[in-house]
Amino acid sequence: MLDPVTLTADLIACPSVTPRDAGALDILTIALESIGFAVETFWAGEAPDGPVRNLFATRGTGAPHFAFAGHTDVVPASPEAFVPTINGALLHGRGAVDMKGAIAAFAAAAARTPDHRGTISLIITGDEEGPATHGTVALIDWMAARGIRPDLCLVGEPTSERQLGDTIKIGRRGSVNMWIDVAGTQGHVAYPHLADNPIPRLTAILTAVQALALDDGTDWFQPSNLEVTDITVGNPASNVIPAHASARLNIRFNDLHRGDALVARVTDIVTAHGGTLTAKVSGEAFLTEPGPLVDSVAAAIRTVVGIDPVLSTGGGTSDARFLSRLCPVVEFGLLNATMHKQDEAVATAGLHALTDIYAEILRTTLV
Amino acid sequence: MLDPVTLTADLIACPSVTPRDAGALDILTIALESIGFAVETFWAGEAPDGPVRNLFATRGTGAPHFAFAGHTDVVPASPEAFVPTINGALLHGRGAVDMKGAIAAFAAAAARTPDHRGTISLIITGDEEGPATHGTVALIDWMAARGIRPDLCLVGEPTSERQLGDTIKIGRRGSVNMWIDVAGTQGHVAYPHLADNPIPRLTAILTAVQALALDDGTDWFQPSNLEVTDITVGNPASNVIPAHASARLNIRFNDLHRGDALVARVTDIVTAHGGTLTAKVSGEAFLTEPGPLVDSVAAAIRTVVGIDPVLSTGGGTSDARFLSRLCPVVEFGLLNATMHKQDEAVATAGLHALTDIYAEILRTTLV
Repeated sequence: MLDPVTLTADLIACPSVTPRDAGALDILTIALESIGFAVETFWAGEAPDGPVRNLFATRGTGAPHFAFAGHTDVVPASPEAFVPTINGALLHGRGAVDMKGAIAAFAAAAARTPDHRGTISLIITGDEEGPATHGTVALIDWMAARGIRPDLCLVGEPTSERQLGDTIKIGRRGSVNMWIDVAGTQGHVAYPHLADNPIPRLTAILTAVQALALDDGTDWFQPSNLEVTDITVGNPASNVIPAHASARLNIRFNDLHRGDALVARVTDIVTAHGGTLTAKVSGEAFLTEPGPLVDSVAAAIRTVVGIDPVLSTGGGTSDARFLSRLCPVVEFGLLNATMHKQDEAVATAGLHALTDIYAEILRTTLV
Repeated sequence: MLDPVTLTADLIACPSVTPRDAGALDILTIALESIGFAVETFWAGEAPDGPVRNLFATRGTGAPHFAFAGHTDVVPASPEAFVPTINGALLHGRGAVDMKGAIAAFAAAAARTPDHRGTISLIITGDEEGPATHGTVALIDWMAARGIRPDLCLVGEPTSERQLGDTIKIGRRGSVNMWIDVAGTQGHVAYPHLADNPIPRLTAILTAVQALALDDGTDWFQPSNLEVTDITVGNPASNVIPAHASARLNIRFNDLHRGDALVARVTDIVTAHGGTLTAKVSGEAFLTEPGPLVDSVAAAIRTVVGIDPVLSTGGGTSDARFLSRLCPVVEFGLLNATMHKQDEAVATAGLHALTDIYAEILRTTLV
């Protein structure tokens, strides 16, 4: 039987720092083909962000189509972090929890669920930790071109915080960055009437922007939040009024907002003070309202580890923001305490428990 | 007779870029000794701001003691700017108007006024365009140690704007620079509750500081003015809340204020928002109220060039801020249009007219 600890260790041994594959998807292909999946991989993108290798694997036919989504790429680490090491109850190595372990657990769960109705698929990318331009987005295009659209999606990101199963993510906030520039006229501080200092206008803009009442949160989301993250004037001369002043801000917003609408609100403030604005929406907010998918994941957690998960929408962004355009999406995986850290490690018992939970989800959904 | 054009040209030929003397004070010493002045020079300060060479020359004894103050150092220029060149009506070269020309004109005026009561002195430094730490301040200390204190002082800075004689400076605003720092706690924009963004507090400080009502000006001074000249955060990461935010500001203030009191007012605002402040007062405001000295300068201008000078307190700082601690100070000199510029030049007729005005001032004051 496919062992999740062995498969996790085999995947850790591939130094698949974004955008490199380093053999990770070949190892996964062999494992999935051994349990009856049809596997296809393809390359997308070009240097420097690519090429990125992506994998789509499927078993069974028809509805319901249950998809598991994840990534084999990892954030950088020292060479020894790519030598999987079992030390007592822990398996150490880059990607152990984020998220080679969850991929291995899902493959092991699928191995234990050979007979099911509908379709099980794996949507695995090598570009989640990077710009995410040639990863899940490319996979969604690839599936669309073949008429493939899942009905339910489970993303295996490490969502558990203190105890395996304590947190499910049922949505994520959106994120938008904005760059504000105010132009003035340079001059000498002794002759301010001959200059036009852009800093008072930038100060007024930032005061107004920071006072924006976005919302008070919703049943499922914390209040949207704006942070000014940088201000740049770059004037070394203490007797000179500068010609430019600029700032950058980020808004993490819930599903009461759309990125474009927030950009328009801030643009109104900026232009009223004679400034200019550029913006980039990294992702819209999404929410999978509690329903059959959330219920089945929560029930599986209760069955296996005996706790009631919190339904969360906190934290950063993930590829779930793309998959949520297709179908209901829930994120659930290992403990995230060590993700992106030097000592990234997973409890081998946690890998087995996660396998049990994933198998229980497949059983209640497809058997 | 001592010719102001020849002496100006001889001084221009010395490339006396602050803090270098390059022979300028030797040339001046020879000229002044030839017309009966006792001349002393001394060095002050050390590298990199020094050593600076200073000159004190005196003729006659007792009161009234009329001092002319100036500087032989110049701002940097290309080598050809130190080759004095007469082109038609103009004498070209670095320092022609700021202010080797005025020194030469005063020496020529003194040459034409051999018989006078009281004392005529020249207080000449080689550190006015630089940090001004080893120049006029050192000369004032040097004079104090010898019990020398002028009763009236004329600074030969180029104060004329469109026409020789159109502007006398009877005071200068003070200047203070302040540096504000606000410390916070770095963190991820997705978890603002774990961070403390210093930018909202810096924004609040700058808003309050820029709204400070300093004054509406006085009979002789324009309103005091505050300019925020720089803001620095230096955070390259769009998803990171920064740990520090800082700003720099300058206040040019009239004689309703003292530098320390302004620092205290801004400090109150900064500390109320949890920030810290450092400050440097470059100079206090000073005013020589219209009276005998101002009248004699204005009358001499009227007699020689037939115009009524404006009494101004505008513009930047000069060494008059130090000399004003000793006695009434007025600044009057050549047209300032080309000062610090590549094509610095003085009209030879202007040098002669300035000599006439300075001689008329000496006549009405001391003869």
